Amino acid sequence: MSNFVQEQLREYRNKNENIGRLIIKCPDQPGIVAAVTTFLKEHNANIVELSQYSMNPEGGTFFTRIEFECPDLKKQGEKLEQEFQEVADQFSMEWKFNYVSDLKRAAIFVSKEPHCLLELLWEWQSGDLMMDIALVISNHEDARATVEALQIPYYYIPANKDIRKEVEEKQLKLLQVFEIDLIILARYMQILTPDFVAAHPNRIINIHHSFLPAFIGARPYERAYDRGVKLIGATSHYVTNDLDEGPIIEQDIGRVNHRDSAEDMKKAGRTIERRVLARAVKWHIEDRVIVHGNKTVVF
Amino acid sequence: MSNFVQEQLREYRNKNENIGRLIIKCPDQPGIVAAVTTFLKEHNANIVELSQYSMNPEGGTFFTRIEFECPDLKKQGEKLEQEFQEVADQFSMEWKFNYVSDLKRAAIFVSKEPHCLLELLWEWQSGDLMMDIALVISNHEDARATVEALQIPYYYIPANKDIRKEVEEKQLKLLQVFEIDLIILARYMQILTPDFVAAHPNRIINIHHSFLPAFIGARPYERAYDRGVKLIGATSHYVTNDLDEGPIIEQDIGRVNHRDSAEDMKKAGRTIERRVLARAVKWHIEDRVIVHGNKTVVF
Amino acid sequence: MSNFVQEQLREYRNKNENIGRLIIKCPDQPGIVAAVTTFLKEHNANIVELSQYSMNPEGGTFFTRIEFECPDLKKQGEKLEQEFQEVADQFSMEWKFNYVSDLKRAAIFVSKEPHCLLELLWEWQSGDLMMDIALVISNHEDARATVEALQIPYYYIPANKDIRKEVEEKQLKLLQVFEIDLIILARYMQILTPDFVAAHPNRIINIHHSFLPAFIGARPYERAYDRGVKLIGATSHYVTNDLDEGPIIEQDIGRVNHRDSAEDMKKAGRTIERRVLARAVKWHIEDRVIVHGNKTVVF
Amino acid sequence: MSNFVQEQLREYRNKNENIGRLIIKCPDQPGIVAAVTTFLKEHNANIVELSQYSMNPEGGTFFTRIEFECPDLKKQGEKLEQEFQEVADQFSMEWKFNYVSDLKRAAIFVSKEPHCLLELLWEWQSGDLMMDIALVISNHEDARATVEALQIPYYYIPANKDIRKEVEEKQLKLLQVFEIDLIILARYMQILTPDFVAAHPNRIINIHHSFLPAFIGARPYERAYDRGVKLIGATSHYVTNDLDEGPIIEQDIGRVNHRDSAEDMKKAGRTIERRVLARAVKWHIEDRVIVHGNKTVVF
Repeated sequence: MSNFVQEQLREYRNKNENIGRLIIKCPDQPGIVAAVTTFLKEHNANIVELSQYSMNPEGGTFFTRIEFECPDLKKQGEKLEQEFQEVADQFSMEWKFNYVSDLKRAAIFVSKEPHCLLELLWEWQSGDLMMDIALVISNHEDARATVEALQIPYYYIPANKDIRKEVEEKQLKLLQVFEIDLIILARYMQILTPDFVAAHPNRIINIHHSFLPAFIGARPYERAYDRGVKLIGATSHYVTNDLDEGPIIEQDIGRVNHRDSAEDMKKAGRTIERRVLARAVKWHIEDRVIVHGNKTVVF
Repeated sequence: MSNFVQEQLREYRNKNENIGRLIIKCPDQPGIVAAVTTFLKEHNANIVELSQYSMNPEGGTFFTRIEFECPDLKKQGEKLEQEFQEVADQFSMEWKFNYVSDLKRAAIFVSKEPHCLLELLWEWQSGDLMMDIALVISNHEDARATVEALQIPYYYIPANKDIRKEVEEKQLKLLQVFEIDLIILARYMQILTPDFVAAHPNRIINIHHSFLPAFIGARPYERAYDRGVKLIGATSHYVTNDLDEGPIIEQDIGRVNHRDSAEDMKKAGRTIERRVLARAVKWHIEDRVIVHGNKTVVF
Repeated sequence: MSNFVQEQLREYRNKNENIGRLIIKCPDQPGIVAAVTTFLKEHNANIVELSQYSMNPEGGTFFTRIEFECPDLKKQGEKLEQEFQEVADQFSMEWKFNYVSDLKRAAIFVSKEPHCLLELLWEWQSGDLMMDIALVISNHEDARATVEALQIPYYYIPANKDIRKEVEEKQLKLLQVFEIDLIILARYMQILTPDFVAAHPNRIINIHHSFLPAFIGARPYERAYDRGVKLIGATSHYVTNDLDEGPIIEQDIGRVNHRDSAEDMKKAGRTIERRVLARAVKWHIEDRVIVHGNKTVVF
Repeated sequence: MSNFVQEQLREYRNKNENIGRLIIKCPDQPGIVAAVTTFLKEHNANIVELSQYSMNPEGGTFFTRIEFECPDLKKQGEKLEQEFQEVADQFSMEWKFNYVSDLKRAAIFVSKEPHCLLELLWEWQSGDLMMDIALVISNHEDARATVEALQIPYYYIPANKDIRKEVEEKQLKLLQVFEIDLIILARYMQILTPDFVAAHPNRIINIHHSFLPAFIGARPYERAYDRGVKLIGATSHYVTNDLDEGPIIEQDIGRVNHRDSAEDMKKAGRTIERRVLARAVKWHIEDRVIVHGNKTVVF
């Protein structure tokens, strides 16, 4: 199966070798789109898809994501970036060129519950998540067979709060060796240190359950059951040092009723979590998510 | 239009004059359904719809809602109730016979925002809420014309927290005069006193916004906006003396995105609130909601 | 209530008097966005929101919707349009400048069933549909009181297939007198002649029920009931001379189950129809819908 | 992983060894529930969950599903069934006792596209589909590794319309050897003969795409794309000899927009198909689906 995935990814890279994406955030002012699109035109880059959003038009913030096609992009990219600096300076831009054929390299962190990992692997095999899954790191051995069957390296690193520092050192070394761009916490269930988080700004995606009203603290499903909620939700977000409070990428819910036990609600929650996480990851690797303060713009 | 509604309600009452509903809650034990349905059969009552649920089968609680047809129910009802007492005693039941042709009599409390009131009036005119709307009580004059155009009495009772006691006295008198079964807080925005609430157990339905995560306290939409939520929700519940914490009847959500301002989110919230409240009221008047502790069973 | 609506619309027009929208469709080629946004910048117009889409990037079609702010737009608009002609010619554009403060003027056509009309009136009063509802035309008198209470003129024109020509002549005269931009068929239930339709390309919005699978022909709800469908849908589309086959603007569904009679399904259908139609109208008046062949781009 | 699933199933069977389900369909008349529940009570069977529905109350059809607990059910079951015959005869019932610990034995038929198979395997491993997956039959070799990794036998039977008879003979033999109760067509893509279908009434579950409006015939996604639909759906149903027209068990939809290519719509369709099929199978194995004519009652 894995050879099939590799081939599929290769084909995707080839097909998109001339497709780039320019992501910009800057103070809003007149003339930004004109300047950027004129630059692209003068550099032979044809716009495929342009999304733009101005938060609070006056005195606010400007966001854009431009997907473009440019002949011989592999060679031209560096030149584009160098020459774009002038435009960027003029408007005080935060900006980035991404190249679709440079697939993002993801590490999936997983604990005992496999549902989110399995969904990601599934969507990846189906051609819905165009990224390299470089490795899986887990504090349990449970998922090894499934992961290795897809020829993805599996690293077992036992973890608990007493050895957090040593565990993270091992993890960081692996992330470096495998040149990881993106960390996906697929129900990893371990708290990351502020240092670890700070080293990967807007590069760690997490998933957790959500309820209306919220049940903060222990045993949320049991409490949701006791309260007779009619909806079970999940939220996927970037990890910051405010626990479960980082910028939200995607949320969704499912319906439950009085017949559902706390255990049934957990099952329903798992179905929603895997769907929401997969969507958030997809949008991230397509460069659709721009973080601004504690919010996201999702193009 | 109102004559049309009255005629529609009359027709509904006539069509359903032999339809009753038996609602039971009791400690679970073997033989309850057999005893109840044998009783009904022996009293010539044919079951139209029976819903049953046992919470925690062993040592738990039994709930049922039985809709039945019984010839000459108007005359037979009293006898049914008297003779059912024996069955009820045997199983320590909380129970109630309701007659579909005895429409529930509702008072709608509203403040300045009309959206929930309008939805209820709309669904009522459409024949989706088979109840008498006996009166509307408001601390503002805004909705008077709309309400009176449907020949529903409109009572303007200015309210604020300093005169809560006097206001509620006036309201209670009206509720008595109009023989009200059901109070619908259609965004009434005033806090009710514990005495008022205690006098109407499981008879006051409220609607309020809900978010994942929750934003408790002031300016929830602004804070939801600042946090970049992707979903806006609403919860309808019975009012208890735990503010906004009573048994949930129904919840739903709508999708928002980064383009939506706090004001847009409020509009989205209104659309969800009116839908959720209308559903909760509908289920209540159809005797589908049984309260148990702080939960509901919704058949 | 109507004075309130008028005031609300006036305030909206004032607030947006310098906001314009430029809608463009043309053969795709490099440089379009650069040319258009440079033009806007040189004319002092600051982009508020830009959406762009290229169908089949190579040799395909380019679409954009640009909302911009331009000082003194009322005076500048004409000049903008004249000078834009040069850009437009260069790229063979179909294009249009719309001014947000020039509210669209709608005629609502309705028959006996009021649900879609009532929803539109409701959303209009709530400030969600920023348009002038210039008049309502009906082949029944039923809705007169409701409509006139909002100080909207109501025209009763009896209609049947034998007098279609005369009926439409009367309607066309009214549409002319009231300077109508948009015709909303809110369950009008009469077939329009090809001439009438041809005179209003992409300006007539209709709503009709939809099922999976489809039940084409008579008594669709009865047949959907007989087939035991689990979903009821609605589609809103522009009217073309292919009956119910014009470009789709919006669709949605609701859930039903075996307990729902054909009559219940009709009620569920009405709830969906009104929601879908209101959304389609909202997007139309915000100039978000561009028709291309038998499809729509909805920005 | 498979040992884990086997253990999970064993635990489920043990936990539910005294749980039975009684499914009844018969002409409606007074006294059915009383007779059945009195019978159960007299046989020491305590009702856990009872669902009942009367289609067209007068002169209509009665349906019930009763889940009950009965001490020593394994031994008592036969006696229950024998003695129930008398009650059944009295009311002309079609009826069946099912025992939760007798897991249904399923055969999954699959062709090249693996998404529905993978979802079923996933839900099965997650403990959401409590059945034995006895074997997988495919006209392709693609899924062999995935299936065999779970220790499920995989049978490759090449198929095409010229050898349909021989193919089905081989399949029927396998179904017999493996004592199959349920056939799941997880995108099998081959037409079954009327004989094959007739031999498995209400025991073959299929999944197919659905649209509003429908696109019957070839290349449905391309035509849905050309028509610019905003929703993509899927329907799961029992197979009858009316192609894709059997009783519907479940339907659902997903949203698409103008940015989605026909290929994207196919992907969206796959996500919906797998979700809808898994739900239909779950309800079937929980004995929640009763077929009546061309409809289903889903309790």
